[in-house]
Amino acid sequence: MTPALDPALVDRFKGRDILSTRDFTREEILFVLDAARLFADGGGEEARPLRGKVLATLFFEPSTRTRLSFEAAIKRLGGNTIGFADAGVSSAAKGESLHDTVRVVEGYCDAIVIRHPREGAARLAAEATRLPVVNGGDGSNQHPTQTFIDLYTIREARGRVSGLHIGFLGDLKYGRAAHALITAAAAMGNRLTLVSPVELRLPGSIMEELKEAGVKPVQTSDLEAALGDLDVLYVTRIQQERFHDPLEYERVRNAYRLDRKTLEGAGRKLSILHPLPRVREIDPEVDAMEGALYFRQAHNGVTVRKALLSLLLGVLP
Amino acid sequence: MTPALDPALVDRFKGRDILSTRDFTREEILFVLDAARLFADGGGEEARPLRGKVLATLFFEPSTRTRLSFEAAIKRLGGNTIGFADAGVSSAAKGESLHDTVRVVEGYCDAIVIRHPREGAARLAAEATRLPVVNGGDGSNQHPTQTFIDLYTIREARGRVSGLHIGFLGDLKYGRAAHALITAAAAMGNRLTLVSPVELRLPGSIMEELKEAGVKPVQTSDLEAALGDLDVLYVTRIQQERFHDPLEYERVRNAYRLDRKTLEGAGRKLSILHPLPRVREIDPEVDAMEGALYFRQAHNGVTVRKALLSLLLGVLP
Amino acid sequence: MTPALDPALVDRFKGRDILSTRDFTREEILFVLDAARLFADGGGEEARPLRGKVLATLFFEPSTRTRLSFEAAIKRLGGNTIGFADAGVSSAAKGESLHDTVRVVEGYCDAIVIRHPREGAARLAAEATRLPVVNGGDGSNQHPTQTFIDLYTIREARGRVSGLHIGFLGDLKYGRAAHALITAAAAMGNRLTLVSPVELRLPGSIMEELKEAGVKPVQTSDLEAALGDLDVLYVTRIQQERFHDPLEYERVRNAYRLDRKTLEGAGRKLSILHPLPRVREIDPEVDAMEGALYFRQAHNGVTVRKALLSLLLGVLP
Repeated sequence: MTPALDPALVDRFKGRDILSTRDFTREEILFVLDAARLFADGGGEEARPLRGKVLATLFFEPSTRTRLSFEAAIKRLGGNTIGFADAGVSSAAKGESLHDTVRVVEGYCDAIVIRHPREGAARLAAEATRLPVVNGGDGSNQHPTQTFIDLYTIREARGRVSGLHIGFLGDLKYGRAAHALITAAAAMGNRLTLVSPVELRLPGSIMEELKEAGVKPVQTSDLEAALGDLDVLYVTRIQQERFHDPLEYERVRNAYRLDRKTLEGAGRKLSILHPLPRVREIDPEVDAMEGALYFRQAHNGVTVRKALLSLLLGVLP
Repeated sequence: MTPALDPALVDRFKGRDILSTRDFTREEILFVLDAARLFADGGGEEARPLRGKVLATLFFEPSTRTRLSFEAAIKRLGGNTIGFADAGVSSAAKGESLHDTVRVVEGYCDAIVIRHPREGAARLAAEATRLPVVNGGDGSNQHPTQTFIDLYTIREARGRVSGLHIGFLGDLKYGRAAHALITAAAAMGNRLTLVSPVELRLPGSIMEELKEAGVKPVQTSDLEAALGDLDVLYVTRIQQERFHDPLEYERVRNAYRLDRKTLEGAGRKLSILHPLPRVREIDPEVDAMEGALYFRQAHNGVTVRKALLSLLLGVLP
Repeated sequence: MTPALDPALVDRFKGRDILSTRDFTREEILFVLDAARLFADGGGEEARPLRGKVLATLFFEPSTRTRLSFEAAIKRLGGNTIGFADAGVSSAAKGESLHDTVRVVEGYCDAIVIRHPREGAARLAAEATRLPVVNGGDGSNQHPTQTFIDLYTIREARGRVSGLHIGFLGDLKYGRAAHALITAAAAMGNRLTLVSPVELRLPGSIMEELKEAGVKPVQTSDLEAALGDLDVLYVTRIQQERFHDPLEYERVRNAYRLDRKTLEGAGRKLSILHPLPRVREIDPEVDAMEGALYFRQAHNGVTVRKALLSLLLGVLP
């Protein structure tokens, strides 16, 4: 059963920007997860609460998954979208500032989703307009709706988002999605184990932040040893361009690849997440395993975004 | 008058993939043509049967006509679309497999139209998902909705799709649309005449297939001689890149160009089809002739696709 | 209060093309401005008069602002769009003529907006189809909906579109938006002052046209002297590619840049318009000034286009 939503919190989300998970309290994050439940399995669609609303999707950098999932969310609720899928067809090509583009588009729509290669671009956009702005990823910085989706998927599978032992695997140095979830998972009260090659360890600054929050994650390069005790494993893509030495890349890539054999050592109920796209980190033979949640996680993107857009636009059923 | 549709056949199309015309029996093809009649001239639009449905149009290769006509079909019925118009903005650019892209998008929509440069891509996509997949063209292989549109247009003009004498003109070696229609027209019981330069004759494998089906098309290089007795002439584009010798290309292109003069020798009621785009195969002066059906054929794309999408999604009025 | 619209004029706009402001009488232009008022501030949206309608947006050249604003207009009124955002994904890439593309798309939609780098392309499109065609900009020629928006914005701010003193600043040689507004403003009975570097003065042909209409604009290079007496200042972008000498470009660009200091000499109620995007012509510090109307002007794009589309499609509330 979904608990009734607190009207004070509903109110707090009206017109709000979604720029960084750091802007949300623990209570607010849990509230979003509660609200999202109302939208699972086609929930909220019948009433078409976003009828006549227009969402702008400004993608200065392509991202199929994020764009399509936002567009599906608003269209399933009866709204529509305008926008562009890459910067080439935007006014930016004519030298227009991001500020001006946002000020102009503000007159065309009810909310703006922005994806931009530059860190801080979403906040800059939010400062330019009175409309709610959703950060769909700004460089290596934030992608907050992804974090809500990750947490929603974990709660759906495990019944809670605290008191779990969560492992992170792969590129923890550059992986934006992993950074945000690590911070949020720590704040929620989970035990963390970080598995990565030495070259791709979590940045010191985030490690410091965790320490200040009283969390001390285990760091290791040994995947198999780590697996036994985990409830959740969050896998990320290791990108070739991070390595100077192609041989080193090959070695790392093979060492951190999940297949059925690797997973034999894992707990029976291990939940496996991945923000996708995957390249070779997870063998397709894993897809059919019960704990393989990454496609479910992708599908939850529509559920969570339906909830967020309804909250921001003040039309929660 | 449109005959009432057989409920058993309606049922057989629910959730079905449209991958190749070879997957359909003669009865099923005729059924699709019957169903399409319900959608002619704005038919089926008032009730908005696809309200709230989302169709994904995944175009890994650009195709204005096919994409716009599918999008018009679903939008006219009250649904909406998500997707991309070329591979550059898709996750494929990040190395994602087609299988994964389809598995992800499955969670965003109710049906998928895919266009892909690789043969077999549509079937691969269909295997990845429980949703109905429509092949919008996979390399030189199939483009089945085009064949349904061709047959629908022929029946609209001639009252039937069997017992006709159908000519095919132009590039019969590489022309995907021609291949599929030749096979279907043969199976439907039509007489075939194939007009092409020797270099661009129908492949032996398809010729063999026709022979096994008991059909023996006439092959000729002489357009004018062939014209006199035809009911229908299906013209295809001759692409320069098929020729090593530019002079040879020029010669062929001029020999197989339809204009009013060429058509003087044709039967009065000759119906001319072309899957479009045309480049120089048909002189614009032909457009105003009564039998010039190629633009009508393009417009029928929306009618036939409205019918197919309604059938697959189980919302036939 | 909006006056009731003249039914004879409503009728005259049904199915009409919007190709050039020259095609409209003074009375018709004022009628469009009157009709637009009905659509201000979300007007006309509740009834969703364009439900089930499909607008094709054929952009053979990218233009975020124009495309997004047309798409927002039709979507806010309950309709939908099909189209492409740049020529790369259109059939033109396969050698199809504009005529054929339009003839094909005609079967998919209810009206066509076309943007094309070639002068005269919109009129050519209009000749190919019985559907209403709206020129969204054809090369350096026309962009008539921009002119309607400019006039609407002036009337909104000043209460009228005649008897004003209107200045034009910047590139008056190549600026399409300025040319059309200059001609229209002259025909409406306004006093004109043209401020530009000598290299970028209004072409002689337009000057001649004005003279024939009995209008004699003041031409000057001195911005500050001109400012004192103006009601409206229409600023345009000065593009670097117009100059052979980069130093000359720098000089001009700095001489014709509006900032708070420059504007000190202006009348208190000066209204500043710009078709956008701006690059450096107006300092962002001007944005907060009362007379800075350029973002309002951009937003009016949706209002005016909602009105025009409703008129052409014959669904004016």
